[in-house]
Amino acid sequence: MRILAIDPGYERLGIAILEKTQSTKETIVYSDCFHTSIKESHPKRLNLIAQEVVRIIEEYKPTALAIETLFFSANKKTALLVAEARGALLATCVQSGLQVFEYSPAHIKIAVTGYGKSDKKQVVFMVKKLTRFEKDALDDEYDAIAIGLTLFATERFLFL
Amino acid sequence: MRILAIDPGYERLGIAILEKTQSTKETIVYSDCFHTSIKESHPKRLNLIAQEVVRIIEEYKPTALAIETLFFSANKKTALLVAEARGALLATCVQSGLQVFEYSPAHIKIAVTGYGKSDKKQVVFMVKKLTRFEKDALDDEYDAIAIGLTLFATERFLFL
Repeated sequence: MRILAIDPGYERLGIAILEKTQSTKETIVYSDCFHTSIKESHPKRLNLIAQEVVRIIEEYKPTALAIETLFFSANKKTALLVAEARGALLATCVQSGLQVFEYSPAHIKIAVTGYGKSDKKQVVFMVKKLTRFEKDALDDEYDAIAIGLTLFATERFLFL
Repeated sequence: MRILAIDPGYERLGIAILEKTQSTKETIVYSDCFHTSIKESHPKRLNLIAQEVVRIIEEYKPTALAIETLFFSANKKTALLVAEARGALLATCVQSGLQVFEYSPAHIKIAVTGYGKSDKKQVVFMVKKLTRFEKDALDDEYDAIAIGLTLFATERFLFL
């Protein structure tokens, strides 16, 4: 099973393609942190992230999307802008035929580190451990991989 | 000039196509309130509204989008879901080549009724007055038309 995993954002978008079969461990097929320029309008940035995801779906042909749900942060304006990014990505992925799986930040932390309140560093440490991924990447990219690992850890019925 | 006007939502989406030339008044070419079923998943509903807007853009070929900005309501969860709908719609409209114009609720009320704190009833009354639109429609449809009228009232340089 090949999946697309996304840490949603409009400025930095963590994207990963992960693969797992009944008999093999999780493999990272692709991962990146996609950036959009602050010089672009917000609607244009939403379009750019949607276009990038379409490009990756067409190249790697995943069948499911794993994406983080959004909770209210201290900065409400940022929360709304990230929600808009999530909306653009969800509509795009459904249009491309992907099945959507959404996980809360706590769920992702439990799945990857075993503890719902672990910090960013612990998530990165466990992603490296679990996947032998050693690229010097931004947190967004590690977060995307963590979200993908969460799908594999959670939807075990898919591998029965 | 032909524009698409949207009152964003994931359950009910107010949509209008309005037209205005340098010498003529605003005309409503099309308007509707598009519904999505609560039986569908949220990502699927985002996809359905995006698909509907693509269909209308292909049929009526507007060159600009007028859409309402979002402010935090009492219900934060609803605000995030509507933000996701806005995101899906913005990315879709940019992809279709539309220029995007965003207006706050207060701006729309001032443009249509002359008063930033007018209520729903006053907006509907003025939309009817200004456009001779007499269909027995839902508020969402009237709101979309009001947002379109706001673009024409605000972006006067487009008609110089």
